Amino acid sequence: MVAEIISVGTELLLGNTVNTNAAYLAEQCARLGICVYYQSVVGDNEERLTETIRLALSRSDVVFLGGGLGPTEDDLTKETAAKLFSHELVEDEHTKRRIAAYFERIGKEATENNWKQALVPEQAIILDNENGSAPGLIMEEGKKTLILLPGPPMEMIPMFESSVFPYLSDRVGEVILSKVLKICGIGESSVEQELRDLIHETDNPTIATYAKTGEVTVRVTARAKTESEAKRLIKPYVRQMKCRFGKNIYSTDENAQLEDVVVGLMRQQNLTLTTVESCTGGLLAGRLVNVPGVSDIFKQGYVTYSNKAKRKLVGVKKDTLAANGAVSEKTAREMAKGALLRTGSDMAVSITGIAGPEGGTQEKPVGLVYIACSLKGKVTVRKCQFFGSRKKIRECSVSAALVLMRDCILENFEL
Amino acid sequence: MVAEIISVGTELLLGNTVNTNAAYLAEQCARLGICVYYQSVVGDNEERLTETIRLALSRSDVVFLGGGLGPTEDDLTKETAAKLFSHELVEDEHTKRRIAAYFERIGKEATENNWKQALVPEQAIILDNENGSAPGLIMEEGKKTLILLPGPPMEMIPMFESSVFPYLSDRVGEVILSKVLKICGIGESSVEQELRDLIHETDNPTIATYAKTGEVTVRVTARAKTESEAKRLIKPYVRQMKCRFGKNIYSTDENAQLEDVVVGLMRQQNLTLTTVESCTGGLLAGRLVNVPGVSDIFKQGYVTYSNKAKRKLVGVKKDTLAANGAVSEKTAREMAKGALLRTGSDMAVSITGIAGPEGGTQEKPVGLVYIACSLKGKVTVRKCQFFGSRKKIRECSVSAALVLMRDCILENFEL
Repeated sequence: MVAEIISVGTELLLGNTVNTNAAYLAEQCARLGICVYYQSVVGDNEERLTETIRLALSRSDVVFLGGGLGPTEDDLTKETAAKLFSHELVEDEHTKRRIAAYFERIGKEATENNWKQALVPEQAIILDNENGSAPGLIMEEGKKTLILLPGPPMEMIPMFESSVFPYLSDRVGEVILSKVLKICGIGESSVEQELRDLIHETDNPTIATYAKTGEVTVRVTARAKTESEAKRLIKPYVRQMKCRFGKNIYSTDENAQLEDVVVGLMRQQNLTLTTVESCTGGLLAGRLVNVPGVSDIFKQGYVTYSNKAKRKLVGVKKDTLAANGAVSEKTAREMAKGALLRTGSDMAVSITGIAGPEGGTQEKPVGLVYIACSLKGKVTVRKCQFFGSRKKIRECSVSAALVLMRDCILENFEL
Repeated sequence: MVAEIISVGTELLLGNTVNTNAAYLAEQCARLGICVYYQSVVGDNEERLTETIRLALSRSDVVFLGGGLGPTEDDLTKETAAKLFSHELVEDEHTKRRIAAYFERIGKEATENNWKQALVPEQAIILDNENGSAPGLIMEEGKKTLILLPGPPMEMIPMFESSVFPYLSDRVGEVILSKVLKICGIGESSVEQELRDLIHETDNPTIATYAKTGEVTVRVTARAKTESEAKRLIKPYVRQMKCRFGKNIYSTDENAQLEDVVVGLMRQQNLTLTTVESCTGGLLAGRLVNVPGVSDIFKQGYVTYSNKAKRKLVGVKKDTLAANGAVSEKTAREMAKGALLRTGSDMAVSITGIAGPEGGTQEKPVGLVYIACSLKGKVTVRKCQFFGSRKKIRECSVSAALVLMRDCILENFEL
């Protein structure tokens, strides 16, 4: 099956909005084993939109149309699609009621325009919108299908997941199942190297890697007639990867972030935490606080940006700073130890480094970062050399600190 | 003039990469007064690429081709474009030397493949790449122009700015000049409301607003025969806006961030700073540390996530917490005052609030945030009510804190 993605909207043509929807839909198609050869963007203009849809239908089985379903005069995706398929627009009672209920829920008044959104092409499959007024629509004509989706990602993505994915999965006539492995502490190229034989050996399941700062996600996707058959296909590969990557796999949950897992481990062991940050300046603490309810383990953090703050707030020795400098193994170690001593936490993690762009020397170049973790009377220090912008170096430092925290907990508690 | 943007690459079709380049190019075209009616994405496939370029040339004057200029077999944008225009590929000595110099600079060895990148279509205008090996290319044939640009944004954007923008500006036959006003402390809809008459009154200059968390950018863009004429067109509108928005304009520098301006003001007044954060958990400190060399004003920060930390680290009174709760005007005030007292900084800023998703009550709903700034013996507290996700609420809090800091400095020093 071949699909094509058309995004409709002036804000995209003017560059005010980045087209994240197209990337999302493309990724979902890849998961479903549906090929995408073209994507396009066009404005809310009937003639150009008609031409673009017609071309897409000539070369693809399924055409996604995202955006242009709003209540204003400008929005004409639905009208254009209906005209192209010669489908009449009729008022849908169910959608009218849903729109009324939606506005009641958000405590706003529906405008006269909004009732235009209850008009749907006859025969269309209606996709309820849990997060907005415009319904999604699936229109079939012969072997061709148009799938109309609202533009705002927070309306489109839940609708895709609840309605469109199952519809397409059904159309593909196969069950598509994927399993995710989230890996930390190894770079993407090493992960790929390690998986090269498996990636080449199989095209069902497929194996794909995605990198983000400090971690790699591997997705194994199988297509089969039944769910159990798909599971059977995936299983040996996942087992093989678990064997190869071992403890570097921090989660197999699609939605888990590294900070969720670290906080989860600490909670499990009843550990409280203090952070002490220099070059990251609070970003590690900020990332931990992404996790709702983190307050049971995370009590406080210090941003010790100046040398004086390192001395006064967490007791780094004047001599240590003088002899080794602020960016050194010894300073990192004393930052973590001092934080434990002063707060009575079970665990402390410290970061000190040179984020640049200035301040690097031959001996201590920009990107040199020391990270220390103190737990159960033992301090582990890791020396890292990162590359890139100030922002990149600081993000890498935060990820590396989370990895170090995880490593120390796993080591100490034999989980 | 009409332009069209074609992005080439499998990573876009698979959804692994979000197409930020298309948004960038579209925005630049809007600045130049060039219309964009279509954007498309196609893979590294000669047949489909040829078809897509041909269609684009049939309806547009200028076609951007981004990506597919790499050294591998897969990359065939240049070859396809040359074939379409019947231009020969010839080796370019200048580019060969530049590629050699580039690899020497980054301390890597050029591969055999890289020399393929020195082949350029005869007659093409060559755009030197300061950040990579692939040159950009401008190919003209009759009235049609193809502009080939490398895919990585960090190569493409500097090349566009230094070479493509001037080329297009010249082609447009006009000088395009824009002036930016960065506004904080007022929402986007209020800014738009305030500007409605001006926006409708003029289409040269054009006036456009762009919102990001906690701030709004207004761009006034004029097209004219000469630079002085363009300046003359812009001037009355900028003057009018300065009059309407006054001190809410925090910068007229395109690249200045709110944190840069706040740090700049503090530096100017020789003020040192301490941050005390609860719900933002270090994000304010982290954002201040985005500014290189911030160490002269920012010495330390506290993340006082627990009530105990609020008491122990910055001396919030037990009674205050018991009577008012952690999210209260009084607690915010004591956090800031305590931080000043303990560190001897000139200024302290504190944030305490409910980021959600849990923890809200009727009286203190999710999104309620108190921000305090202590300066020159006076504490200013602002009560804010934000909406949206945990992430959104925390980002809004950080922006609001920067705005409060700026307001307090401006007020105290009559700048």
